[in-house]
Formats: sequence, structure tokens, C-alpha cells
Amino acid sequence: MSSNENAGLINHKHPSVTIPAPESISCEEAYSTKAFRKIAEVVVSSLEQYLEQIEPVSGLALTDPSMLTHKARSLMTSASEEIAPFDESRLRKIIELYTRTGIQVHSKGYMGRQFSGVLPLSGIFDLVNSTVNQPSSFYEAAQLPNVAERIMQDELNTFIGYPENSFAMVTTSGGSLANLTALLSARNHKYPDVWSSGFYGWNKEGKPAVAVSENAHYSIKRAIGIMGIGEDQMVKLPVNENNAIDSSRVQARLKKAKEQGLHVFCMVASACTTDTGSFDPLEELAAIAQEHHIWLHVDGAHGASLLLSDKHRHKLKGLEKADSFAWDAHKMLFTPGTCTLLFYKDKQRSYGAFRQEASYVFEKESDIYTALDSGEQNFECTKRPVIMNLWVSWAMHGKAVFSQKIDHLCQLANQAYEVLLNEDDFEVIHQPQANILCFRYTPDNLDPEVHHHFQLYIRNKTKEDGRFFISKVELNGQEVLRVVFMNHEIEMKNFRMLLQEIRRTGQEMIVAHPAARYETLSIPQ
Amino acid sequence: MSSNENAGLINHKHPSVTIPAPESISCEEAYSTKAFRKIAEVVVSSLEQYLEQIEPVSGLALTDPSMLTHKARSLMTSASEEIAPFDESRLRKIIELYTRTGIQVHSKGYMGRQFSGVLPLSGIFDLVNSTVNQPSSFYEAAQLPNVAERIMQDELNTFIGYPENSFAMVTTSGGSLANLTALLSARNHKYPDVWSSGFYGWNKEGKPAVAVSENAHYSIKRAIGIMGIGEDQMVKLPVNENNAIDSSRVQARLKKAKEQGLHVFCMVASACTTDTGSFDPLEELAAIAQEHHIWLHVDGAHGASLLLSDKHRHKLKGLEKADSFAWDAHKMLFTPGTCTLLFYKDKQRSYGAFRQEASYVFEKESDIYTALDSGEQNFECTKRPVIMNLWVSWAMHGKAVFSQKIDHLCQLANQAYEVLLNEDDFEVIHQPQANILCFRYTPDNLDPEVHHHFQLYIRNKTKEDGRFFISKVELNGQEVLRVVFMNHEIEMKNFRMLLQEIRRTGQEMIVAHPAARYETLSIPQ
Repeated sequence: MSSNENAGLINHKHPSVTIPAPESISCEEAYSTKAFRKIAEVVVSSLEQYLEQIEPVSGLALTDPSMLTHKARSLMTSASEEIAPFDESRLRKIIELYTRTGIQVHSKGYMGRQFSGVLPLSGIFDLVNSTVNQPSSFYEAAQLPNVAERIMQDELNTFIGYPENSFAMVTTSGGSLANLTALLSARNHKYPDVWSSGFYGWNKEGKPAVAVSENAHYSIKRAIGIMGIGEDQMVKLPVNENNAIDSSRVQARLKKAKEQGLHVFCMVASACTTDTGSFDPLEELAAIAQEHHIWLHVDGAHGASLLLSDKHRHKLKGLEKADSFAWDAHKMLFTPGTCTLLFYKDKQRSYGAFRQEASYVFEKESDIYTALDSGEQNFECTKRPVIMNLWVSWAMHGKAVFSQKIDHLCQLANQAYEVLLNEDDFEVIHQPQANILCFRYTPDNLDPEVHHHFQLYIRNKTKEDGRFFISKVELNGQEVLRVVFMNHEIEMKNFRMLLQEIRRTGQEMIVAHPAARYETLSIPQ
Repeated sequence: MSSNENAGLINHKHPSVTIPAPESISCEEAYSTKAFRKIAEVVVSSLEQYLEQIEPVSGLALTDPSMLTHKARSLMTSASEEIAPFDESRLRKIIELYTRTGIQVHSKGYMGRQFSGVLPLSGIFDLVNSTVNQPSSFYEAAQLPNVAERIMQDELNTFIGYPENSFAMVTTSGGSLANLTALLSARNHKYPDVWSSGFYGWNKEGKPAVAVSENAHYSIKRAIGIMGIGEDQMVKLPVNENNAIDSSRVQARLKKAKEQGLHVFCMVASACTTDTGSFDPLEELAAIAQEHHIWLHVDGAHGASLLLSDKHRHKLKGLEKADSFAWDAHKMLFTPGTCTLLFYKDKQRSYGAFRQEASYVFEKESDIYTALDSGEQNFECTKRPVIMNLWVSWAMHGKAVFSQKIDHLCQLANQAYEVLLNEDDFEVIHQPQANILCFRYTPDNLDPEVHHHFQLYIRNKTKEDGRFFISKVELNGQEVLRVVFMNHEIEMKNFRMLLQEIRRTGQEMIVAHPAARYETLSIPQ
């Protein structure tokens, strides 16, 4: 037994531990409650200042990575064997550099993507999660988070409409992981031997295949590749003029797939799509899936939040008939990334994603504590208790803190649509179903043949100018501009400013370079 | 165009928006900077109080889920269509309920698992991530995080020893996801057609198989099931008396696998194992893997952090020869969950996890900004900028804030080992290689045939009593007790108290029920 077993952390008797120089601190100090208080004050006041001083209309300032690296390195201590003391000024500079170089999601110039500033309570609660710092896959390590999950699944089910007690909700880290988990449940349910035996040599009913909208999120395609099914076995379902799956053409497509030697065991619908915010017809697709004994999974990462809105809920009609669906709270429920809710119509199937069959579920229910464990249902071993950010917001403020904002954001998209209808030099692509809207700038003095590439130019130039941050997507082979309203402070005058900026940028270019074709990413000089 | 397009968020002209009652707040208020400041103060002071008042020696108090549900529900607002105002007292009660029902990771009674209280700076920085709230898979959405990743990969490589510029580091959400990602890279590299074609009908060289230590983490087995290879194609490598892979028996096992019609394309080693903290012989395994053209992946989730210690680095010798390895910063680098670093010896292979082949890498390098994107290398679409918690700690304090604590924790395990050597009624299972130690309570007055089940009884009874939280693992069919030292405040007198408690608990039971067999989980009356 060592003679110094009772020594503290900095053990001066131990040869390898150097005595701290005046410019260093002890390990105890760095990990102390005193450090916690001091650092928390600096971080909170830095962030408060950032939030107060945000430019009213700004997007993104791109910095050369090598310059940014140089700056970041200049803020790093050179201490190696000793612990450098906390330096308030350096930390403030780091936070400033971080916030200043980010996309300005709190500004009214940000209309770009599906992430946003979060509900303050929800964001700040991360600090509690990080301090408690326990994985939530097991009840004993996260009692309140596990209880909160059960409460939230029941609260949310008020708007979904599953029969009580027979469904399940699992939390996981992101929509891609939820989609993969659901598809694995589907695969293992339809092919119970694959988990143990692999896909090697399997060929009874045809090649396993998954039917997916042409507009589905890339994570679905990834999941198919990951699971060993192969992307070639992805059956693309045709879409209509609203970019939603055309349910009247699905039966024919499935028939053709069968003739091609494919066995579609799973169908994936979107509610809504990432590109245009379109809702697939869930009711019709559920009926088709049921007829063919196909597992229906719905990717509701973005749009499932509309369930909370009395005005928009009808767009998700039929969701309760899907076998599974994913819902990102870190999108339209304004919690920090990533908090995804994965629902299963049949609770027992939620135990089948990571094993041969879900037959052992009753074993698990034998103990009142372990009955709440989710370690067999979610992919993660160490899972952050992400439900807490959502539950605490729901518990403190109620669902209206989400639904009022959702209603408003969807209304903004509708107002923007109406604005565009009255602008002759813009072409609006679709009537918005959610808070996403696509359009093109197509002035009379531009050759229609370059419209496609011109949108990309406009988007890049706008981004570069730094006042607005919008996105672009490719629809039916055509590039289009896209806005996502995630910031409730945006007003129509800001959207009009955006259109004015696009017009100015576009016309300057057209006048200066009438023959430009915009075929390369480099902006013509 | 709607006539009220310029109205604020709470639009009184709009029929569906009710006028807030006195007891409710507006959406703007809930999302305001003022709310941010107020809530942050409540959260920080609640957590400070919690940290200051932690019981010196306590473990876990399990609560009946239905009682906890009742309590949690009593703290929820009943508001539905209106937004309930922020209520400081309710939030304080929620935080108290959360912290009180958690495992007391900051107490000296916690010696149970691989999670722990975090470095305060690292935990508090989550607040910045949550406020900026942008996914870090793309440079434009997370400039500083992407630069910080490059800086950290170079800083950490000082201790790994890859040739500069040819390796890659990818961050991802958890060790399980890193292991899956690496195994997918291996699979897609060895079987470039599987991503598109699937495993269907593949049979040229034998069934694809993965060689894994008997003691490997369950996430490896899961990855094999997920990828469509099938758990039956897991070739178990024999271990020696230290629970590490016995490299002298690997060649024979691989030969046998080949004779069984298996084609081992990937070998997974642990550094260290979760059970006993054993390090597999990486140097020898790398040589064998190279000889057979097998991808070597090392699961260094827990133990790779020992690279930062001059005293313990040698245990990872050969790591730089592995094709890939995973390293959890949320374990021994004391950042909040989950921050995993996935390293590849060959940068180009890091682009192969989620596609057919990694051939397009040069395309990506065409732009100084997109060259830093990691969206093709990591699974997540929305990826939390987890690197920031690690980098800011490294930047402010230097690596000693990790290495000093690691050295100390490993020293604690060694001291505990020496204590146990001198206790006749305890049996120590192994000399610790890291901060994990397994042992059994085997007093003379207990029938050796019940030793196995008795350890489980002891573990559960100790947990139930609530002063200490330890874990148990099954080694070679035998249950053993396990401590993991993650709290630097633990002293040997606390470990001696644990042994005393085990002794007291055990003897009380043995005396009261001399014929008990401990074969069921229910504790004899």
C-alpha cells in the first residue's frame, strides 16, 4: 500500500507532479464550485451582450479558415505541464469570436435554414444537463429525464392520437439517427434473421427494398446504405406538382418494383420535406402500406411540430397510422440540438431495432425501475438527457410557447408568398405548407436559359454580401432560392428588403455582364 | 398580400390569437434577452447551491417512477392556449428534483461508472453552443468549431504520432456512433459495391466477418448487426488472464475463421476495455492486421485519454498503426456528453463511411471553406459543435487540466488495488491499468459456490443503501464488483469506508440467512 494514499490531488510527494508555478492553478481549483460561479458569470454576461447587440439585419461573414486559425491559436495558452489560470478576458474574446463568426440566427437577415435561436429557458437548461452529466438510457442514472420522457410522450400524444399505453416514444440524438433506428426496426421486423445471419445469401421474396419519395431527406438514403440493403434497392416514389408523393401512382410503382424482383418492406414519407415543406398524403400512404404489409415510417423531423397548432394539425392527418415517425424538437420546438423524438405505433416494435426480435420486452417490465430503461431502444450508450430541455419549457410555459411561434412562422411564409405573387420579376414555386418557401428571380432582361444557374449566383452573392442568409435547393433539376422563417422577429419589410437586395445584385450583374452564363461557381468579374 | 403582414408576433387582429390573460406572457417575452438573463441567474445560482451542498459521501436514491411522475406533474403549468409566465420558484424546484434524484457524481460515494462531473468551463460552455445553436458539419454554419477541430486534431496528434497532414479527425456524438462510422468505412473500403448493391448474394471470399475481443463493448456487436453482416459473423478473439486480447492466439483464430468460410475484413481492439480497463496489445495486433490486409479499429473511448499522460501513454503503443480509433472526450477529458473524436490514419478513408468509395475527396478540397466541411464524414446532419467544450478547456487551461486529473485517478485505482491486497476477505481480480478496478467480497464464512450471486446482492444492497454507488460486471461467467475512479476528490479513506460497508452488509446477511443462495434478484427477507 502506498504511503501517500491519503494525499490530495496535487501530491507534492509524488515525483511526477510539479509544484505549480505562480502562473498556474491546481487541478482542484479548475474543477471547483468557485470556478463554476466565476466562469458562469462571464459566459452569461458575454452572451447577454451578444444578444443585445445583434445587428438588426445580418447574415454571415465568412472568414478565411487560416486567418481564423491564427486568431484562435492566439487565444490559447502555451502552458503544457501546468494548468493555466482562468483568464476572463481570453474567454470573452473566444465567445466573441465564436458568436461573431456564426450565422446570425437571431438577426432578421437570417432566413436560411432549419436551425434557429432557441427558447432561452430551453438553451440555458443545457447547463443543468451538463452539470448533472448522466446518460439517460437507464432510469437509475437519469430518473427525472426518464419520467419526463413518459410525461412528454403522453402530452404529445394528445395531438397524435395513438391509443393509450400501446405506443412508445424514444429520444435520440438527431433525425438521421431516428430514421436509421426506425428503418432498422422495420428491417428486423420483416427479416428477423438478418440481425444474426446478415443479408448474405438472402433471396426468398426478392431483394429487400425501401420505397422513398424523390424528395426525401438524404439520411434515408444513407440508412439504406448503412443497413446493407444497398442504395440500388431504393424505389423512388413519384411526386406531384406540390412536391408531395403522388399517392395515385404509388400502387403502380410498387407493382413495377415487384416485377423488378424487389420486395418493398418499408415506405418512407415526409412531413414535411426539407426542400419545400411539403406534406406527403399520410392517410392514403398508410392505407397502401397496410394493404401490402409494408412498414410506414414518416420523417417528421421538421413538420411534426405542426401537430401542436390547431390551424395546421390537419396537414399531418394519418400520422397516427404510421408504424413509426421521427420528430426533431431542435427544429420547430426551439430546443438546442439535438433532441429527436421517435414514435412507434406498437410499443413492442420499439425494442426490435438493435436485436433479432423484440420478443424479450416482457422480461424488461419485471422491475418498476428498469421498465423505464431505453438502452435497448436507442442507439446510444451515453445518451444526453435531451428531453429535459423540451420538458422544462413545456412544464414552465405550456405548449403555447411553441404553437404561437409556429403559427406565426407559417403565417410569415404565407405573407411572403402573397408578396411574391405581386412581384412580376419573381416567380414563386409553391404555396407554403409550413414556414418554408421557394422562389426564383426571373427578370425580363435575363435569358430564361440561364435562370437555373443564375439563382445559385444570386444566393452566393447575397450570402457574400452578408446582410441576408438564404438557402437554395434543386427542384426537378432547377435551382431555386429558399427561405425558412425560423425567427419570429422577421417582418415583411425585412423580406421586401431581401427582394430588393436580390433585384439590385441581379441587375448590377446583368447590366455589367449581359452575356454571362453563370455555369461555374466562380462569380464573373 | 395580407393586410397585417407587418404585425408583430402577437397579432391581435388575427382571429386565432387570443389576447393574453394577466397570467400569461407574450411569445416575444418568453424568447427575449431579458428572459435569458433572468433564467440564467436562477439556473446558475441553483446549480452553485447544489454543488456547494453535496453530501460528502452519497450515491443514489432511487425513487418510485410513479411517485416521481406525480411530483414532476405537480411542477407543470396547466396553461394550454396561453404562455404561462416564468416562475422562478417552480424552476428552482425542478432543478432540485433533477439534481437530487441523479447519481451523485460529485460526491465521494460515487465510484460507479465512466461518467462524471465535468470541468466547469467545459460544462458552462454548453450555454454558448446552445445560444449560437448551429450544426457544425459545415464550415459556413460553424466557422470557429471547424477551425477548433483542426487545431485539436493537431494538438492531440502530438501524443498520437501520425505523420502530419495525412490523417483525419472527425467529431461525432458518442463512442457507439464513432465505432459504427469506423466499421462502415472499413466495410465500404473492403467491399466497395455493398453501399450501392447491398450484401445480397455476396459470396466471393467467404462471409464478411469482424474479429473482436471477447471483452469488446456491446456497440461493436450492434454495429455488426446494423451493417447487415450479422452477429454470427463475429469472430471472438481469445483473451489472456489480464482480459486483453492474447495476440499469440490470434493467428490461429483467424486461420480457423477462414476454414469456417469467413472473411475477416476488420479487427477491433479495445484501449481500454470497459469491464476491467485492460489495454489490448496494439503493436502486435497492428502487425497481424497488416499481414492479413485487415482494417484495425481501436475502441479507445475510455482509455485513449491516457495518451495525454507521460506516465501512462506507453499503454497505447501502436495506436498510430491502427486504421481508425475512437476517443470519448466526455469520459476522461471531462466534457459534457457526448463528444467523441474519431481518428483515421488515412484521411481519404474518412470520406468512405457513407458512400460507395472515398474517391471524390479531391472535389471537396476545391474551396477553402468547404474543405473543412465534415458532413460527408460524420453520420449526423445536425451535429452539435461538441469540439468547442473540449477546445475551450484546452485553450484556457492547457492539457495539464486533463493529464493531472487522469494521473491522479489512475493512482487512486492503484492505491485501492494495494489496499485490497492486504484485505483477506476481499479478492482483487486484476492490477489496474487505468482507473477501473474489479474485486470480490469472499469472506471465509461464505460458501464459495454462492460467491458469484453474492456479488450481485452486495452491489444492489450497497446501491440501495445510498451511500456508495459502485457497479458490477461479469468476467468469465463470474460476477465481480467494479469501481471506476472519476472523481478526483475521493481519498483512500472513502474507499476503505466502502469496503467496511460491504463487509457490514455482507456479514449481516450471512449471519441472518446462512443458507441463502442469492439466485434471484430479490433480496432475501
